[in-house]
Amino acid sequence: MNFQLYIPTRIVSGDNCLQKHAELLRLGRHALLVTGKTSARRSGVLDDLIPILTGAGIYVTVFDQITENPLLETCYAGGQLAARCGADFVIGIGGGSPIDAAKAIASFAANPQMQMLDLFEAEKRVRPSLPIVAIPTTAGTGTEANPYSIMTLPDHERKKTYSASDSWARVAFLDPKYTATLSVAYTLSTALDAFAHALESYLSPKSTDLSEMMALYAARKIWRVIGDEPAVYDMDMRRELMAAACAAGIAISVTGTGFPHPLGYSITMLDGVPHGAACALFDGDYLEYNERTDIGREKLAHFYNYIGADGETLKKALPRLSGVKLSFTEEEIDRRVRLISGAKNYVNSPYVLSVEEMYEIYRKHFLK
Amino acid sequence: MNFQLYIPTRIVSGDNCLQKHAELLRLGRHALLVTGKTSARRSGVLDDLIPILTGAGIYVTVFDQITENPLLETCYAGGQLAARCGADFVIGIGGGSPIDAAKAIASFAANPQMQMLDLFEAEKRVRPSLPIVAIPTTAGTGTEANPYSIMTLPDHERKKTYSASDSWARVAFLDPKYTATLSVAYTLSTALDAFAHALESYLSPKSTDLSEMMALYAARKIWRVIGDEPAVYDMDMRRELMAAACAAGIAISVTGTGFPHPLGYSITMLDGVPHGAACALFDGDYLEYNERTDIGREKLAHFYNYIGADGETLKKALPRLSGVKLSFTEEEIDRRVRLISGAKNYVNSPYVLSVEEMYEIYRKHFLK
Repeated sequence: MNFQLYIPTRIVSGDNCLQKHAELLRLGRHALLVTGKTSARRSGVLDDLIPILTGAGIYVTVFDQITENPLLETCYAGGQLAARCGADFVIGIGGGSPIDAAKAIASFAANPQMQMLDLFEAEKRVRPSLPIVAIPTTAGTGTEANPYSIMTLPDHERKKTYSASDSWARVAFLDPKYTATLSVAYTLSTALDAFAHALESYLSPKSTDLSEMMALYAARKIWRVIGDEPAVYDMDMRRELMAAACAAGIAISVTGTGFPHPLGYSITMLDGVPHGAACALFDGDYLEYNERTDIGREKLAHFYNYIGADGETLKKALPRLSGVKLSFTEEEIDRRVRLISGAKNYVNSPYVLSVEEMYEIYRKHFLK
Repeated sequence: MNFQLYIPTRIVSGDNCLQKHAELLRLGRHALLVTGKTSARRSGVLDDLIPILTGAGIYVTVFDQITENPLLETCYAGGQLAARCGADFVIGIGGGSPIDAAKAIASFAANPQMQMLDLFEAEKRVRPSLPIVAIPTTAGTGTEANPYSIMTLPDHERKKTYSASDSWARVAFLDPKYTATLSVAYTLSTALDAFAHALESYLSPKSTDLSEMMALYAARKIWRVIGDEPAVYDMDMRRELMAAACAAGIAISVTGTGFPHPLGYSITMLDGVPHGAACALFDGDYLEYNERTDIGREKLAHFYNYIGADGETLKKALPRLSGVKLSFTEEEIDRRVRLISGAKNYVNSPYVLSVEEMYEIYRKHFLK
């Protein structure tokens, strides 16, 4: 019996769910809309959202400064803006970055006395965050359904995760039409991110009955879409991916992620490989190493059966779908492995990689 | 895509989860403990709970007046007591009745100006309920994981459901050891109640992906335990049943129940058949009628496969497990069908029973 459950976010989904559940947006009198330069506009969210809010007598301030890998100082500025203009709730619109940023901004806004790095210290966050709403425009990170917010520190090199009891969205609206303008490549990469969440969560020793249900649900839906390698993603596929990404986000809220995440980190940071693709490149290794343990073999047998794919197929397909083709010298590999070897995620799976095995995996994929 | 989700209760489970998560009990300075005359004591909850609370400097007032089919006036009195003694949160301990009662008491306590029947009128409940904690000592109703509270009205005949956005427990503690003193017959009857929730929720047209996952999870666990008709329930079985009952409670929070519930109501009210057994008696009919619809047949095929039982076995086993052996004259049947024919649950399944079919079912089971 491992029936734990804590999902404080109310999740609504489906076509036009923003319009259908507009009452759930009434969380205050003045909303700060947190987004990037283009995605909230291109996806159509702003066109839908602003009339709903203003029609309900809610003031709207748009803060569209969020970049990929959101900067802590941008979030700090957003929080100061929210406090100055009297915003009393925050709506994050976009992929993972604006929603992650909204979480940080909601805390800075409630605590305008905080310094930037105080965000990571619970005792400095005196007042609870403003209520947060999440409107994803990608089906990938699942940040709409967990408390994590990954910030790029002021050195613009290191990242740090902010997470708090009040950094969950109050409401998440999942309307697949907001992902309709995403390219095939981008859609695939975000789907691979969600698949990695599902797989890594499922095998985690911290998994619960609920997180395993969510992980299996997500992995099956994603594999059914991406396994066929569609040339175009229709709305039915996008619908499935959006539900799956959110479920996988819930799954990692329980377990965190496993070693494909840190293994992929260096090629995202240094070589610009999209995060989901970077994880997928190492998913095959993740399957292979974990099959060396009894518990991993047993759980994976169920996983393969449930999602309807055999292990050998997955081990080949996931790296191929990643599309990553890089080659490095031994020195370049060394630099990358040193960057990733200190992460905490390695212990979060039945098989725990040694540093030597990280080198082996990197050499296998990349050695010139 | 039907990925809705709203479960504001934090659910923790496992052996000694009360001790392990004692910090989750710190919801105020003074707790009103709502329970029945004996079950909270016999189960051992009070022995565990009171030292934890007093050790944390929390005052405790015990209100042990709750009976089966809790009376609205008792809950009103409990609310007045809580208000008088300054309790600022409420802990319901027991089977469905004390936990249902705790929900009502939490609203009366926050609104001592309310009259008894005001509970059912949202605009009369001016202030939000006190925070509620649920500690179930049976594995059946699932009320720890939904907002429903079934009150017996002052005429002591009719029942009415109270449900509000703040009638969910803030935290539920599922420790199977608190069910260890329950008899085999009582354990079976409560398990049948949870099974009925799972089955009826699964087939409901209102089901979502989450509610179906919860329903299948619950039904499989329960069937694996009760299908073998054990002579004694060991702790492993009780663990499974407790998780299952909670999951089924979540499932009906989304969907409500189907027609075995109203069909069973009359023989609970007039003939004293335990609620779970009364539902189980009609579960076979529920399967049979719903198999006449395409969607019912399709969903049930998956249900049977998932839980590992064929339909014909279930249709015989569930009524048999109910243990109900009653016979009535045509007049007695008529009285009972008139009592149940007005319920709302009939439309909540693929097959909608006619009143004539209710008579047919009753005659089949009961006609002398």
